Amino acid sequence: MLIVMKQDATPDEIAGVVTTIAAMGYEARPMPGRQRTTVGLVGNDGRVDASTIEGMAGVAEIIHVSKPYKQVSREWKPEPTRVPLPDGTFVGGSEVVVMAGPCSVESAEQILAAARAVKHAGATVLRAGAFKPRSSPYSFQGLGRYGLELLAMARQETGLLIVTEAMDVEGLELVAETADIVQIGARSMQNYPLLKECGRLRKPILLKRGLAATVTELLLSAEYILAEGNPNVILCERGIRSFDTTTRNLFDVAAIAVVHGLSHLPIMADPSHGTGRREMVTAMARAAVAAGADGLLVEVHPNPERAMSDGAQSLYPDQFEKLMREAGAIAEVIGRSLATAGSVV
Amino acid sequence: MLIVMKQDATPDEIAGVVTTIAAMGYEARPMPGRQRTTVGLVGNDGRVDASTIEGMAGVAEIIHVSKPYKQVSREWKPEPTRVPLPDGTFVGGSEVVVMAGPCSVESAEQILAAARAVKHAGATVLRAGAFKPRSSPYSFQGLGRYGLELLAMARQETGLLIVTEAMDVEGLELVAETADIVQIGARSMQNYPLLKECGRLRKPILLKRGLAATVTELLLSAEYILAEGNPNVILCERGIRSFDTTTRNLFDVAAIAVVHGLSHLPIMADPSHGTGRREMVTAMARAAVAAGADGLLVEVHPNPERAMSDGAQSLYPDQFEKLMREAGAIAEVIGRSLATAGSVV
Amino acid sequence: MLIVMKQDATPDEIAGVVTTIAAMGYEARPMPGRQRTTVGLVGNDGRVDASTIEGMAGVAEIIHVSKPYKQVSREWKPEPTRVPLPDGTFVGGSEVVVMAGPCSVESAEQILAAARAVKHAGATVLRAGAFKPRSSPYSFQGLGRYGLELLAMARQETGLLIVTEAMDVEGLELVAETADIVQIGARSMQNYPLLKECGRLRKPILLKRGLAATVTELLLSAEYILAEGNPNVILCERGIRSFDTTTRNLFDVAAIAVVHGLSHLPIMADPSHGTGRREMVTAMARAAVAAGADGLLVEVHPNPERAMSDGAQSLYPDQFEKLMREAGAIAEVIGRSLATAGSVV
Amino acid sequence: MLIVMKQDATPDEIAGVVTTIAAMGYEARPMPGRQRTTVGLVGNDGRVDASTIEGMAGVAEIIHVSKPYKQVSREWKPEPTRVPLPDGTFVGGSEVVVMAGPCSVESAEQILAAARAVKHAGATVLRAGAFKPRSSPYSFQGLGRYGLELLAMARQETGLLIVTEAMDVEGLELVAETADIVQIGARSMQNYPLLKECGRLRKPILLKRGLAATVTELLLSAEYILAEGNPNVILCERGIRSFDTTTRNLFDVAAIAVVHGLSHLPIMADPSHGTGRREMVTAMARAAVAAGADGLLVEVHPNPERAMSDGAQSLYPDQFEKLMREAGAIAEVIGRSLATAGSVV
Repeated sequence: MLIVMKQDATPDEIAGVVTTIAAMGYEARPMPGRQRTTVGLVGNDGRVDASTIEGMAGVAEIIHVSKPYKQVSREWKPEPTRVPLPDGTFVGGSEVVVMAGPCSVESAEQILAAARAVKHAGATVLRAGAFKPRSSPYSFQGLGRYGLELLAMARQETGLLIVTEAMDVEGLELVAETADIVQIGARSMQNYPLLKECGRLRKPILLKRGLAATVTELLLSAEYILAEGNPNVILCERGIRSFDTTTRNLFDVAAIAVVHGLSHLPIMADPSHGTGRREMVTAMARAAVAAGADGLLVEVHPNPERAMSDGAQSLYPDQFEKLMREAGAIAEVIGRSLATAGSVV
Repeated sequence: MLIVMKQDATPDEIAGVVTTIAAMGYEARPMPGRQRTTVGLVGNDGRVDASTIEGMAGVAEIIHVSKPYKQVSREWKPEPTRVPLPDGTFVGGSEVVVMAGPCSVESAEQILAAARAVKHAGATVLRAGAFKPRSSPYSFQGLGRYGLELLAMARQETGLLIVTEAMDVEGLELVAETADIVQIGARSMQNYPLLKECGRLRKPILLKRGLAATVTELLLSAEYILAEGNPNVILCERGIRSFDTTTRNLFDVAAIAVVHGLSHLPIMADPSHGTGRREMVTAMARAAVAAGADGLLVEVHPNPERAMSDGAQSLYPDQFEKLMREAGAIAEVIGRSLATAGSVV
Repeated sequence: MLIVMKQDATPDEIAGVVTTIAAMGYEARPMPGRQRTTVGLVGNDGRVDASTIEGMAGVAEIIHVSKPYKQVSREWKPEPTRVPLPDGTFVGGSEVVVMAGPCSVESAEQILAAARAVKHAGATVLRAGAFKPRSSPYSFQGLGRYGLELLAMARQETGLLIVTEAMDVEGLELVAETADIVQIGARSMQNYPLLKECGRLRKPILLKRGLAATVTELLLSAEYILAEGNPNVILCERGIRSFDTTTRNLFDVAAIAVVHGLSHLPIMADPSHGTGRREMVTAMARAAVAAGADGLLVEVHPNPERAMSDGAQSLYPDQFEKLMREAGAIAEVIGRSLATAGSVV
Repeated sequence: MLIVMKQDATPDEIAGVVTTIAAMGYEARPMPGRQRTTVGLVGNDGRVDASTIEGMAGVAEIIHVSKPYKQVSREWKPEPTRVPLPDGTFVGGSEVVVMAGPCSVESAEQILAAARAVKHAGATVLRAGAFKPRSSPYSFQGLGRYGLELLAMARQETGLLIVTEAMDVEGLELVAETADIVQIGARSMQNYPLLKECGRLRKPILLKRGLAATVTELLLSAEYILAEGNPNVILCERGIRSFDTTTRNLFDVAAIAVVHGLSHLPIMADPSHGTGRREMVTAMARAAVAAGADGLLVEVHPNPERAMSDGAQSLYPDQFEKLMREAGAIAEVIGRSLATAGSVV
């Protein structure tokens, strides 16, 4: 950490900062420059609260040199994390894992039709919500516990793994009994009590980026899970907020490359929520794979015009088949391939 | 709701939209224009999922004419809501209620010193966190249950009311036993299970705007609380995310006027989190009152340079006294006044 | 255009809106709904100033049904525009045109080395700035007229076409004498006098998206050029402003698909400015091609560590060769190919 | 400037950075830390291009310690700049200067009526556009040279000073012949050729913040003008781009306090463009004055429902009178007052 003093800071003010740092148990190293003095704080273990020093007399600015996270960083663990799934595949290796299915579980018929369609096209994981966070209290909120039972039935029938969302600590236990991968949604990315509970599970956690979360904040939320002992975290870019409302969200494809630079954790992409528009999903799925995404999360519905939520961004099964072909071909250009059930890399 | 058809939409596609709307139980009213046809959906009660229609063939765009919220809107209830507090004051009347205190409860001495200082300057509510949501798992997370006991002690001693944050459903019960006003923080604004529980309480809820929440989303979150039966919701602007990182957040003073136009609920302002910088807090508190804020939430610490969190944005007690004088004078310019304990308007 | 009246609008207020619309020469069509009346304005030719009506008594909101642009829209011209270049290639056909070179022309040696390197790797157009818009008045501002001479010399020597930026009306004439394609930079996207002059040229114009321009605003700026008579406009996504400052800009890959949906104009991508970081450029170039970009604009420098500007985002020549190979392979996945000099599609 | 090396940077890579800095003519000061080495660059005069070093092997990040601007900073000149106007008032002293009038000059009758109304209410400067930058090429673009003549006539008649916008270098000369204050609009904030010409004038320049400009970029644009020799720059906050489209722009009231902390230049506020909605203008004008604005720029039209542009955000004359009363009373709370013609502070 670097404390930049004001140009007109007095020697007493500089001494005050040095004393305060020493009192915190760190080493202070003043560096007089041409225009101003800066004071280095050496030995920062991530627990220093900059705010205290920031408010002291004569201080112009605090500059953070270290990243605020640790265990999720590439400097802590250079080789990429490969999160193992029960079917023998990994998220984070050379394979690209595709998880697909409807926004919500709506009925036995619907979820089975969806599961068969995405399995036929080559997906290995079925996605669908049983508990749905909705902006409006008057919107459909999911089938809850019954939805989980239908998902288990679809797994039994097709062999697909299941990823589904938990919204709170109570629901987490329930969801974890059924799901192979527990999803933490964008709105819950900074629900710290929930993240801590996820850290006590051993199941893989799919952590979606908040709508206005920086990459640093996404990594800090993952750090909560790792800090409690669960290393199996899969990040997911799903579109962020922007000033341009032409699309529902701004799908931040570049975040995939940014995360790969900063962290060893795998990162997937959700082009369905990322764009909100069916006609853009395939192009954005291709772009995500080209950018290096470790997996795709895609909304597919057997009958999008009858979907109870997110119909406009759900693909028809035949559109999804085309997406799989193109994504697979692009994966090969960069030396990867789509995961297939039971494959071990 | 208005469905805008593409210029080259076929009669069959238009008929398809009309049929679908009818099947949903609403009236469809096609309006041919010079360039394209639009179809009005009449009778929308807020439960229509636009996404289904949005994805249909020939549809260019969906336009929402009604607001997605109801009970919180001014059209539902034109006169302003006045939320009653146990000391006989109201948030939302002609008085401006000031809530002040440290970021976190740190010790008996600290919270008592803070309470006495803010009471002396004229505040009527003491703010301080016992449960702290922090971006990093390694930061100080609050004193928890013991912090609540210290707050109760400070109330006993000073007569100030208490506002403090609950982070999850478990904590909510605990917090509600002690607090006079329950705060839901920015990161929890879309924690729907928590909002529903707040709706079952009868205590006033201080709902802070999420870092990247639109005013519409803030109102929808308030709608969750009203929909469950608790009408005593106080909104709070506390700074939003922007492209300019000169300040920690962008304090959206204009949101106060926007909310007053759209909703009958009172809205306060938190210039401390709104700016993150002590030297800006007073100017922004003045601006908020001038814009019509129904209250202020201000961080004051007896000893900011020793604060365990947010020291840089905490005022010294004498700075807070000046803030109170100026805020009071500005309130008078627009026909209001600062609330005083026991005052009834 | 649709005028949404307030719920409590009086018959007189509704009549006032109808009269005003008629006085403007358009047809007003009132539509009473369950909760409120809306008034349709039929015959809008794009010249209606909504602001006047928006301010009238009883009006809640104005909703625009038509897009504000015309000649650039797909509804105006469904088939894609192919902008012809002097070497027989087109931007906007099945080929992907790659334009590459250093940020600035620095010297004869530098520009020749750069030109040879990018030609060797397969680019067909040389990019480099002679006039540089810089945020600071103290930064290197380009070689100006001499830079143009060096570019002409590099063309002579290598056969590459030249794209370079004009910053004002005076410079435009000068630049247009030398350049094969005139670039209008992001900071000039709403410099309307400059855009109008571009519309009087016959040379292709490469119009870069402003740092905070919506896609609609980008298309409106292109409309200025088409409205003056020049149909040869190539759009370019180059990164926008976001709340996350991890990268210099947020490279909006999805804008490529959005533009292709709304407009017939071709759109290129600039992953160098889009990310600002050399190690991300190749991944983002791949993503852009996968998303359907009609061309790439890439910074390559023979000696990035000695570049006078933008060194951190300039590729080394061998990195650029790898980019060309991967971009070419991805283009083939979606039925396209990289343009080669003299190729005619 | 501080160069943060990667944790695994080799001694050779560190030596490379040191050598490069020395070759640039600055002093390099390596500082080994617990986790990594940082290298200080001492003697930075603002001309160092960080990008070159940023791209070197072993470099993790560049951190800027100095601000990129100079002459506009408070550290360069601690006392506030007072920009003198021809009527003896100053922008930047204890007075608050109010500039008001219609968006555009439309006719002799309109501009005279507007001028009389705003003078009657107490404004000292008349604002109105003769050259209008419009997003659409089909919108009204102003009366041009004839508009300037009408403004001169209105000044003759009322004694008000004139502020009006110049859009390009050609227009600047024309505008400067008539205007007492030359306005550079938000879209031109980074039109560097235009800024340089403004620097060669001696008239006061009203520089509006770009829609997505950071405060640092606004100050850098002002630096262009000061660097050419014109110290009479008045900044103006007029609303920025945000993710929430409830209002046309997000009026960044806090920027007033931020600028006052960083720069000696005066800053005004434009609550009309800042919000785009008439019913919010007065509340936001109050907020701006409470935050310390050195002036207000307000749209007032004798007949808003007939305005050729921006009718929805123009005040009626009697609304403006109320605004003046309230703004004046708030100015007094903080020891200021509204400027009156001929007053000298």
